Amino acid sequence: MKRVGAIVSYDGSNFYGYQGQPKVRTVQGVIENALEKIFKYRVYTHAAGRTDAGVHACGQLVVFDCPNPRMTNTDIKNALNANLPSDVYVKKIIDLPDKYNPRAQVKKRIYHYYILNTKNPDIFRRKHLWWFPYELNIEMMRKAAKYLEGEHDFSAFRKSDPSDKRNPVRTIYRIRIIKMRGNIILIRVEGKSFLRRMVRNIVGALVKVGTGDWSPEKVKEVLESRDRSKGAASAPPQGLYLYSVYI
Amino acid sequence: MKRVGAIVSYDGSNFYGYQGQPKVRTVQGVIENALEKIFKYRVYTHAAGRTDAGVHACGQLVVFDCPNPRMTNTDIKNALNANLPSDVYVKKIIDLPDKYNPRAQVKKRIYHYYILNTKNPDIFRRKHLWWFPYELNIEMMRKAAKYLEGEHDFSAFRKSDPSDKRNPVRTIYRIRIIKMRGNIILIRVEGKSFLRRMVRNIVGALVKVGTGDWSPEKVKEVLESRDRSKGAASAPPQGLYLYSVYI
Repeated sequence: MKRVGAIVSYDGSNFYGYQGQPKVRTVQGVIENALEKIFKYRVYTHAAGRTDAGVHACGQLVVFDCPNPRMTNTDIKNALNANLPSDVYVKKIIDLPDKYNPRAQVKKRIYHYYILNTKNPDIFRRKHLWWFPYELNIEMMRKAAKYLEGEHDFSAFRKSDPSDKRNPVRTIYRIRIIKMRGNIILIRVEGKSFLRRMVRNIVGALVKVGTGDWSPEKVKEVLESRDRSKGAASAPPQGLYLYSVYI
Repeated sequence: MKRVGAIVSYDGSNFYGYQGQPKVRTVQGVIENALEKIFKYRVYTHAAGRTDAGVHACGQLVVFDCPNPRMTNTDIKNALNANLPSDVYVKKIIDLPDKYNPRAQVKKRIYHYYILNTKNPDIFRRKHLWWFPYELNIEMMRKAAKYLEGEHDFSAFRKSDPSDKRNPVRTIYRIRIIKMRGNIILIRVEGKSFLRRMVRNIVGALVKVGTGDWSPEKVKEVLESRDRSKGAASAPPQGLYLYSVYI
């Protein structure tokens, strides 16, 4: 059996997140159901990122072993797309080394967070970006973001969960904040791996700086406190996309 | 009581169309519910266009009498938006003459139909445009569209319904077909008023010409036949927007 990776887009609006769970609709669930329809038995998958409910992806990596050696990568792609619902789409199938484990081996993950910074909402995109109607000072946000780049203990930016004993030290390679057409602000965060809610908690803090509620230095203080209760509220899920993954 | 018009956007994806009906979610229903919350009794509305299920609007005109003379137009707008669900948004309130009747008195209606003409779908916009992956010859479509401009009996382009005895003669002022960024094709149809399904049936026919299945002249033949069964299938609702209305 050859190990392959599917590069997958999904609209997270109607999912209870990526990770499979009984009785609710998850991205992993619909992908494994599609694989079961194609191969007639359950094929298990491993993904690069476990996105939360309402969070989207343009470049999620979903890894599995293809049980049918006669299928080409294009055959697998077409068979999956024919069996997936309209809110999940396989863009490409790539070959991977045997035993490739995306959680541990992915070299880089890039998340995009989109803020619509206009006075009036865009109802057609209400589930695909965060509408934030107050003025944001991008320069101050960039200054604050600099404090988060590099290797840090991100306890103040993780989902508070006393049962989560994972190492809170993570490395952010880079945060870019880009003004786009139509008053959209893109916050692009690149890192090796992330803690739960980490990107949304970073965006929440940067927006506090953008409005002037916080100074850029306050973000440094919060980071150093390693205390989630000192942080800003999470930005909502609909602005966040798992944008791409480096194998 | 002063008569006002609300310029309304809505995402038609989760509505059974514009027109109020018992037991299902309609745009008119949610607007009248919002008015009832504000004014404490039922305020009836009249709209410029009765869009079908799944069809959107950026510039629907919804007319009603405001029972509270102390409210400014901005007050009415804010009160409505505070009481409307997230898929309906009032952009503006305008003053109208007493007894203004939008169905009869609107001078021009503009519909936009968006086709995403790319090999791969865009799952994030699957409910907001028609994904059509085959090549379209825009020049041929423009040629065909010319036959539809002007005053004609549009029986071959209306929803077949023997109980509908309305005059099938309508005037199309202009049809423009525009290539936009990102391989989006916009078909913009301007007219005084339209029959049911007329725009979607026109788009369905123009796409038949675009693929080469029909010659441009075939559209003229179909028009002259006044026979719906000679027409092409309707284009799907999700590409259609009631774009604006001239008072």
